[in-house]
Amino acid sequence: MSKQVLPVFPAGEGCCAPMVREPLGEGDAVELARMFKALSDPVRLRLLSLIASYEGGEACVCDLTGPFDVSQPTISHHLKVLREAGLVGSERRGTWVYYWVIPAALRRLSGLLQTPVQDSVPASSGT
Amino acid sequence: MSKQVLPVFPAGEGCCAPMVREPLGEGDAVELARMFKALSDPVRLRLLSLIASYEGGEACVCDLTGPFDVSQPTISHHLKVLREAGLVGSERRGTWVYYWVIPAALRRLSGLLQTPVQDSVPASSGT
Repeated sequence: MSKQVLPVFPAGEGCCAPMVREPLGEGDAVELARMFKALSDPVRLRLLSLIASYEGGEACVCDLTGPFDVSQPTISHHLKVLREAGLVGSERRGTWVYYWVIPAALRRLSGLLQTPVQDSVPASSGT
Repeated sequence: MSKQVLPVFPAGEGCCAPMVREPLGEGDAVELARMFKALSDPVRLRLLSLIASYEGGEACVCDLTGPFDVSQPTISHHLKVLREAGLVGSERRGTWVYYWVIPAALRRLSGLLQTPVQDSVPASSGT
């Protein structure tokens, strides 16, 4: 597994303004909800993580069934959901299809959920 | 609306190791998928964002119905889903219930989705 340096993404870049800073618009919410829906299944989350953790950042579909207690067609369905949500890309090479994570998509969601480091619990709730 | 400084969260802290660095465990995946499921609805995403954007970081339920084209019971249902997923806290004060975002929960999800800044597209997909 490659050792990746993970510099944090600068807060508040164009596409990824945190949702805690200003209310989210209706159109953005529809699109983002679709991406979060793709992450709302434990097998899909683990698949995405497994793909991203692979050396070189991509994984053959042939390597993605073993770790899961579900059938190959189910894995294929989950991969399709991830791809349609724009979270992974794929390409057939010979017999196998290869998958990789789309970093910009993850960063968009990560940036959206960024909050100030200090917890801003309302004063009244602590008394 | 308060102007908040948004320092980015240090990458790789205990609870929030990015999923791109190591494969996600089964137990974590179940819990995180439940949180992402709460974010998988556009109205809930906008509600969460609206609450977080309020001055002082909390909002009265009486302020949360107006911006949405859905009924009060529907809003209440969505708020319950957000609360049960650990994304918002709530407290009744007199007539109204007040809601606030739980920053640690958002940071956990944000940290999980952090990726290296440079896009690591596989060499073969660019040729």
